[in-house]
Amino acid sequence: MESLGVGILGFGTVGSGVYEIFKSNSQIIEKRAGKRIEVKKILDVRDFSGHEAESLITNNFDDILNDPSINVVAEMMGGVEPAFSYAKKALEAGKSVVTSNKALVADRGAELIKTAKDNNVNFMFEASCGGTIPIIRPLNTSLTADNIIKIEGILNGTTNYILTKMTAEGRSFAEVLKDAQKLGYAEADPTADVEGYDACRKIAILSSIAFGGTVDYNDILTEGITKITHEDIEYAFEMGCVIKLIASSEFKEGGVCAKVTPCVISRNHPLSSVNNAFNAIFVKGDMSGETMYYGSGAGKLPTAAAVVGDIIDEVRNMGSFIPTSWDIDKKISVLSRDMASIRGFVRVLINNKVEAEKSIDHIFGKVAFIDAGFENEIGFVSGVETESTMSDKLSSLGQCSGVEKIINMIRMEE
Amino acid sequence: MESLGVGILGFGTVGSGVYEIFKSNSQIIEKRAGKRIEVKKILDVRDFSGHEAESLITNNFDDILNDPSINVVAEMMGGVEPAFSYAKKALEAGKSVVTSNKALVADRGAELIKTAKDNNVNFMFEASCGGTIPIIRPLNTSLTADNIIKIEGILNGTTNYILTKMTAEGRSFAEVLKDAQKLGYAEADPTADVEGYDACRKIAILSSIAFGGTVDYNDILTEGITKITHEDIEYAFEMGCVIKLIASSEFKEGGVCAKVTPCVISRNHPLSSVNNAFNAIFVKGDMSGETMYYGSGAGKLPTAAAVVGDIIDEVRNMGSFIPTSWDIDKKISVLSRDMASIRGFVRVLINNKVEAEKSIDHIFGKVAFIDAGFENEIGFVSGVETESTMSDKLSSLGQCSGVEKIINMIRMEE
Repeated sequence: MESLGVGILGFGTVGSGVYEIFKSNSQIIEKRAGKRIEVKKILDVRDFSGHEAESLITNNFDDILNDPSINVVAEMMGGVEPAFSYAKKALEAGKSVVTSNKALVADRGAELIKTAKDNNVNFMFEASCGGTIPIIRPLNTSLTADNIIKIEGILNGTTNYILTKMTAEGRSFAEVLKDAQKLGYAEADPTADVEGYDACRKIAILSSIAFGGTVDYNDILTEGITKITHEDIEYAFEMGCVIKLIASSEFKEGGVCAKVTPCVISRNHPLSSVNNAFNAIFVKGDMSGETMYYGSGAGKLPTAAAVVGDIIDEVRNMGSFIPTSWDIDKKISVLSRDMASIRGFVRVLINNKVEAEKSIDHIFGKVAFIDAGFENEIGFVSGVETESTMSDKLSSLGQCSGVEKIINMIRMEE
Repeated sequence: MESLGVGILGFGTVGSGVYEIFKSNSQIIEKRAGKRIEVKKILDVRDFSGHEAESLITNNFDDILNDPSINVVAEMMGGVEPAFSYAKKALEAGKSVVTSNKALVADRGAELIKTAKDNNVNFMFEASCGGTIPIIRPLNTSLTADNIIKIEGILNGTTNYILTKMTAEGRSFAEVLKDAQKLGYAEADPTADVEGYDACRKIAILSSIAFGGTVDYNDILTEGITKITHEDIEYAFEMGCVIKLIASSEFKEGGVCAKVTPCVISRNHPLSSVNNAFNAIFVKGDMSGETMYYGSGAGKLPTAAAVVGDIIDEVRNMGSFIPTSWDIDKKISVLSRDMASIRGFVRVLINNKVEAEKSIDHIFGKVAFIDAGFENEIGFVSGVETESTMSDKLSSLGQCSGVEKIINMIRMEE
């Protein structure tokens, strides 16, 4: 039986998971791919002396690029460079590229798909969104009879783990983050996760496929979870709700409304029960209605399984470009945030309750007050406002008599 | 641009949905398929005079078989014959076949896949399991790095609708069924749905793909929901549970443990919140862990969307057989039901409480009694038993003093 070679770029968590899966599941992989697949070389600058894969390690990308026995390059280095240059060179050399790197795909995906197409190979990235969850391929090959209307979900495992623990254990963001770092659920520099940048890139990628044109992640309203406190979570509890970091993207006339923000969602909302490092993605189509996809959003073997699934698909389709719904010649605008209306849960620090309530009534009209038992503050749910009206009203309220300052505003998801 | 032709077999609910989707979403379909796709002929013996598709209707299958402009046949007639003969002839004539017909796939799937392979065309059946939910294609093309360990889910929309209404409205099976028939959620002859036969065929199909060999649906333990009463549902409520018709299949040494039965499941179980005609399927792999897929399990446009998705995939791959994980040369045995252990919720009609409790204690040992406020009966949850021990113990208990008869035994899903 013919054998095909894989080169791995980056022997970290996911990269070593890919190596392990090829070892432990070689039989079923060979059966499904119809060919033997072997890891031939691994690029990593670190020292792996004594590791069973030691003989495969190289610190020179050219060793992989120039190895004619390597047909597929699996990139798990993270970041845009040098991942982009390596991926581009590999594609130009007639090797398919498979990646779990959302930063790379969100930033240079269209260009790499074009390079793949020009060279009759493939650029695949199932593992870049939703970890192990099959979502890229279902969008590209199953939900094809639909005009997709909306995508919404929990796309970041780290923040979902942190919010789950904050909710269950009543601890602060900083405390839980520290534990998450110790346990390997959060990186030493957690910025990309906790500030929402990671989820932002993922919703941009999913939107590009679902709506059929490149969506620029730079234009997506992105807010992380660093300002979420245990008090916010207690208010949510009072309302029969939890707080989740929700990424959403909705197709409208002329573009998409897309955002990544913490949201107060009802405990009846199906995303409310997605906990720990799990992800879940809802897709709404005009024919299929709502479908949902759920699974591990992170983790060594689950993410690596998605990478290996892509490699198997590539091996089955060797020599032909697999169509994608992402039209690389088309750009889809992210619409002004004022195209979207929101209801906000607002917390206000006060020095005079009667005055503050009068001010709130004056500026926001009828609101629903929420009492979670905290002193010197008022919590309320606003009516529906555009993003900019909300922002203006909060500024005004901050200046009013009786009000010390606006503590927080969290969007409500209905 | 090249144009391809589709012949529709059966112009009922799903068949007319397929026709409608090709009309309403022709633009996006053409873009995704890379070719224009046209419905050329429709086989149905009924009279469609005055219908806009009237000119396409034929009552002679040969008109479709012998039409060289028809490349794909979409079979939505239901039942094994004549669907099988038509599908087989179409494949032999070099036309791919797409179907939503679970009876056909469960009964003759392996043979039709072989015929497709021999003729370099495809036999596709995404719509046969889980309605609109992408599950066949993810199993065949995404979860390929995994040894699949278990599949479990709610696979029948009609019974899930009936159980949802019985639970929400406190009404009897017979009453809700009548309403469901009026509303089109249940067929005039509801046997295949309410007796679990439909779900049984679906779990056999999913098992055949997931575990890589034909699983015979005839061997699967199958129990429907006709014996479920509102009292059972109230007992379940007392236990913090609901009752769902669960199909499951688990890979073990030497075969699979597969069954379709009503189950008492915790309200914390993710399947407990799958309501109405929705379906949900969990897949457990040794690498990806648990993934879940959710969507409309029935309905005209959702099911038709899955059929059209298959047609688009076929058009993109015209002229080549798409690999499937279902090894058609391999049979996988359904293991004796004694390989599976269950915990049962048992209801017993009694004439003497003290005597009956003594008998239960004697036969079942330590059990948990459940009080839902009904007189002259005892409800309890047994320990873990094999299926045949459970059956023997229930027979013995039925003979004991204090006991009139066993009312019901429903499996607990943990």
